[in-house]
Amino acid sequence: MNDDALHHKRKMQKRQQLQKTIVASKTEEKGLLMVHTGTGKGKSTAAFGLLFRHLSYGFKSVVIQFIKAPEWKTGEQRMVEFFPDLLEWHTLGKGFTWNTQDKQKDIESCQAAWSLALDYLNREDISLIVLDELNIALRYNYLDPDQIIRDLQQRPKMQHVVITGRNASQKLIDAADMVTEMKLIKHPFNAGIKAQKGIEY
Amino acid sequence: MNDDALHHKRKMQKRQQLQKTIVASKTEEKGLLMVHTGTGKGKSTAAFGLLFRHLSYGFKSVVIQFIKAPEWKTGEQRMVEFFPDLLEWHTLGKGFTWNTQDKQKDIESCQAAWSLALDYLNREDISLIVLDELNIALRYNYLDPDQIIRDLQQRPKMQHVVITGRNASQKLIDAADMVTEMKLIKHPFNAGIKAQKGIEY
Repeated sequence: MNDDALHHKRKMQKRQQLQKTIVASKTEEKGLLMVHTGTGKGKSTAAFGLLFRHLSYGFKSVVIQFIKAPEWKTGEQRMVEFFPDLLEWHTLGKGFTWNTQDKQKDIESCQAAWSLALDYLNREDISLIVLDELNIALRYNYLDPDQIIRDLQQRPKMQHVVITGRNASQKLIDAADMVTEMKLIKHPFNAGIKAQKGIEY
Repeated sequence: MNDDALHHKRKMQKRQQLQKTIVASKTEEKGLLMVHTGTGKGKSTAAFGLLFRHLSYGFKSVVIQFIKAPEWKTGEQRMVEFFPDLLEWHTLGKGFTWNTQDKQKDIESCQAAWSLALDYLNREDISLIVLDELNIALRYNYLDPDQIIRDLQQRPKMQHVVITGRNASQKLIDAADMVTEMKLIKHPFNAGIKAQKGIEY
């Protein structure tokens, strides 16, 4: 073994020891409140990746979509066909605010979606709930953040929740266990490339 | 309709017009080079969400993992069981550098993984390639970034590639069509919570 290889080996042995100490210090298990926010891509997509991972172990899961409308077909919805006994998928939005053009109806559809979410937030058998674009509903004050956070905090101890959407409220960030900002560095839409099947939807 | 509702409707009508103009200006379709980087969670998870979306439409896809070792079982690997005719999954890493402790072997395994990636980068029938944690291999100079970028640029025009891992090189960012930085705002590991099944793996 030459000097460089030996130096590398010793450095990595020290690093391994450190990693072992760190991992040993993490002992708690609990249902996580996770938030994906920011203007970049991957907020909902990462939630759906997590959803597949979850379903693959046989854990019951639910998706509730607050903004997307049922007529907008996406690839991710087809996960239900693969896990019919484990996954329930509710697309309850009415579309973008500039398409509905009716604030009162937008508010009503978000409130109806939250009312359904509450049913699942009371169920011990549901392991993961994806609340897709709930941040948008909170941003426009279509739902009361204080009430939403109280409801989330009363869910079963081991239940995981992922909330997606731009502009997550500071109150929600404070209440969350995990927050990732998907930050836009470069977006193909800005380069004249249109939304493509299997990528954006 | 009251004044507030009317004001909202008019504002949204203008916004809808603007959106239509923007969408109409995006006409190009092409295979995208996508990079998920940053210290936050969701880099690989979003790639696997994209992978499911892609497979759901019947598009052939491949995963090559540069760092993760085969003995580390994950939920996402089970996607192969659901799409046996569409998806090939290669976990070719040897584990974290602090576990292998052998720089020469790490370099060799990354080079072998790239050599396999090249086979797929030459195939017109492969619609999406996930190069999981390739950024790590580039960061440690286990692979030559200039050569990797040249190889990527010679792939079929409609083939999509997603590259994940911390510390994406600036050269790769410059060459990419889409770059998202998953920025860590809050991580449960920092609060003493351990990696949980169905969430982290």
